[in-house]
Amino acid sequence: MARTIKLAVIPGDGIGVEVTAQANRVLDAVLAGGDVTLERTEFKLGAERFLATGDTLPEIEQAAIATHDAILFGAVGGVPGDPRLKHANIERGLLLKLRFDFDQYANVRPCTLFPGVASTLAEPGDVDFVVVREGTEGPYVGNGGRLREGTPHEVATEVSVNTAFGVERIVRYAFEMAQKRPRKQLTWVHKTNVLVHAGATWQRVVGAVSAEFPEITVDYMHVDAATIHMVQNPSRFDVIVTDNLFGDILTDLAGAIGGGIGIAASGNINPTGEFPSMFEPVHGSAPDIAGQQKADPTAAILSAAIMLDHLELPVEAERVRAAVRADLATRGDAARGTSVIGDSIINALPARAA
Amino acid sequence: MARTIKLAVIPGDGIGVEVTAQANRVLDAVLAGGDVTLERTEFKLGAERFLATGDTLPEIEQAAIATHDAILFGAVGGVPGDPRLKHANIERGLLLKLRFDFDQYANVRPCTLFPGVASTLAEPGDVDFVVVREGTEGPYVGNGGRLREGTPHEVATEVSVNTAFGVERIVRYAFEMAQKRPRKQLTWVHKTNVLVHAGATWQRVVGAVSAEFPEITVDYMHVDAATIHMVQNPSRFDVIVTDNLFGDILTDLAGAIGGGIGIAASGNINPTGEFPSMFEPVHGSAPDIAGQQKADPTAAILSAAIMLDHLELPVEAERVRAAVRADLATRGDAARGTSVIGDSIINALPARAA
Ligand SMILES: CC(C)[C@H](C(=O)O)[C@@H](O)C(=O)O
Ligand SMILES: CC(C)[C@H](C(=O)O)[C@@H](O)C(=O)O
Repeated sequence: MARTIKLAVIPGDGIGVEVTAQANRVLDAVLAGGDVTLERTEFKLGAERFLATGDTLPEIEQAAIATHDAILFGAVGGVPGDPRLKHANIERGLLLKLRFDFDQYANVRPCTLFPGVASTLAEPGDVDFVVVREGTEGPYVGNGGRLREGTPHEVATEVSVNTAFGVERIVRYAFEMAQKRPRKQLTWVHKTNVLVHAGATWQRVVGAVSAEFPEITVDYMHVDAATIHMVQNPSRFDVIVTDNLFGDILTDLAGAIGGGIGIAASGNINPTGEFPSMFEPVHGSAPDIAGQQKADPTAAILSAAIMLDHLELPVEAERVRAAVRADLATRGDAARGTSVIGDSIINALPARAA
Repeated sequence: MARTIKLAVIPGDGIGVEVTAQANRVLDAVLAGGDVTLERTEFKLGAERFLATGDTLPEIEQAAIATHDAILFGAVGGVPGDPRLKHANIERGLLLKLRFDFDQYANVRPCTLFPGVASTLAEPGDVDFVVVREGTEGPYVGNGGRLREGTPHEVATEVSVNTAFGVERIVRYAFEMAQKRPRKQLTWVHKTNVLVHAGATWQRVVGAVSAEFPEITVDYMHVDAATIHMVQNPSRFDVIVTDNLFGDILTDLAGAIGGGIGIAASGNINPTGEFPSMFEPVHGSAPDIAGQQKADPTAAILSAAIMLDHLELPVEAERVRAAVRADLATRGDAARGTSVIGDSIINALPARAA
């Protein structure tokens, strides 16, 4: 049955544009000859747009994005220290605004060390875990402020807001994911010994939800200790669930140990489907190498694969991942351009089953 | 000139007791034959004491500790999940209470990869940096609470409080430290793109203080990106200054890459001297290996060396570090007991200069 998917594309800035181009080529290639058609709308948003027009995310564009089935996101951000961006906050005004307004509460970030990928770890082992990061609350809510700004008596607060509602839905999402994986193991990460209020809410909710999943082995780790385990024994993890800020930190670290941030993919999922979910590489816009075809598009391509899964196209998702695995296995040390890697992955796509 | 130093010793729980014993032996050995005498008072505090008496940190003992010149701290914490400790919070009630009440705002944690030490990193390079972690504010203040506890409408908040006063003194401390080091490089770490209020205070203060230190090269890194650099290129760091929570996370990671948490040392410094400073290994009480002479006392011994520096005994501090370096260089893979390592370090102590 023919199906049309409305895809909002936000390439953003810097290498975001280059890697998104390759993800789009791979999507076209994997869907070619099938009955799924992509109908794309491109939204030019990010630092470049801000510099040109002063806009971060106009309401009318946000409303237009909301009508799509999914969002493919590149990366946003200008050159660090650019004085013209001093009062811009593209991260909060665009990226986080989409995550929050579209209630993308499940930020899913797999970490797999693919065969052939060099690791920074002396003994990488068999790394294959997923971080499920809460995406809509915690220290990311933006609450807080500054008193006596610019004086010696300045006080700045940041308020982390954590609700049983918000914690429960992400914890449940993570348990459901663990239930589908062979190892059935869930590690929740927090800092309960210091952040006692939020920690108590997390602890109570994890306890309550775990009663519904008797097959899952649950353990707890403080966030500081989790960094040590991730570096020394990453193969011990299966599914990790954690709050927005701890998840931000741990997934960059996971990217570093899982073969580099150039292949770390993510989905910002709204599991209810009320608003579109958004798929983006974990890396940023890397202005220093932008426009030079130096960026690795693999993270963007793997993010597109997560999107295919989310759109209930698991066969296509798996074909993309197989092609990435094939490319990574033979990659070696030679530097290849962004589109050369895109070509290689497209050439490696397994044929559509008859 | 003869000098008596009053030392409060808090061995704490688990391996804290074993490693502190070795640190004390090394202190005795390095001071033997000199004109400095240690006058020790031991305070039995921690989970074990709590279980025995219900006390965490009685006022009278805190007042007694305050009269000492320095505190040697082991580690505290009982067996995770012990139901009798459910309503205890030894971390907040003892360790953090001492750091806060004694205004130990400079939490100094060096990370050096010593020759002979196996690293988890594929390419360790020349690792030698110090993390200066703020110790008395940020998300550690304990502000916040829970509303509608135990209901589906529960809301928990954690308020990070950051003052220009508190940020400035730690930033200045870090600049002064960088000024004394050959590379003269300071990296400040935060998450200014998301935690915009606290981030703005940090940014303003770093800018202002840096104007007084024209020789120091300053750069900024988001905390998530900092984990990647720490794993992929740790030799790029000289002095890192950051807030209490980011510092907690980054120093465990630094411990992991700097040859393991068994050798990561720290000082909780009150630079004014109004209250005693406290010296402790970064590791915890490790109940799983407690009482078995399995713990590595090196972190506790290196913490004692930081204490000697703080007490203006730099020659003795350096002799301890030289002995640790000598021991580490010949350590190899064989497992050695806690006191065997202590013996080896004592034997390796360079003779006192004539
Ligand atoms: C750009 C920034 C706001 C974002 C975050 O902190 O979530 C990024 O670091 C990420 O991990 O997606
Ligand atoms: C035990 C805990 C309260 C402490 C902290 O979070 O500061 C520890 O992790 C540390 O790093 O010293």
